[in-house]
Amino acid sequence: MPLIKVSATSRPQSVAGAISGMVRDHAHAEIIAVGPDAVNQAVKAIAIARKYLELDGIDLVMVPNMEDIVIDGNQRTAIVIQVRPRPAQLSP
Amino acid sequence: MPLIKVSATSRPQSVAGAISGMVRDHAHAEIIAVGPDAVNQAVKAIAIARKYLELDGIDLVMVPNMEDIVIDGNQRTAIVIQVRPRPAQLSP
Repeated sequence: MPLIKVSATSRPQSVAGAISGMVRDHAHAEIIAVGPDAVNQAVKAIAIARKYLELDGIDLVMVPNMEDIVIDGNQRTAIVIQVRPRPAQLSP
Repeated sequence: MPLIKVSATSRPQSVAGAISGMVRDHAHAEIIAVGPDAVNQAVKAIAIARKYLELDGIDLVMVPNMEDIVIDGNQRTAIVIQVRPRPAQLSP
């Protein structure tokens, strides 16, 4: 399954490009982000990817989950986000 | 249209309760958050609301947009998130 790790210093435009490519190729992407800055970059990236995919006639939805993970021996809460095309019947 | 403003100090559980109520009553909610901490609380709240609504047989998707707004004379980027029920055919 395609997994994109987003950090606080990730460029939203770059992440949006990765999301767009994965959705075009796999109709699906999964993002993991730990910490408020990383989550913020991930959400911005998805907003930008929606614009990148407009010309392909694809809109995106995201489905967030919280998951406990261990980083360097410390327990953290990761946000894992499923990104999928939005069904046409939901469009305005 | 129901609008929920989320700040850096919002409790995700409280916001999740508001989201759940609005989705039950209006089949739709809209969230606005400015800044990484607020966006993080909003995403956590949506993840929690998905659990609150499980017993109702409702799953949620979110659709993020970036919007330029002016706060106290300063231009900021707000994240505006549409929250809607997820169509059954997308469920695993």
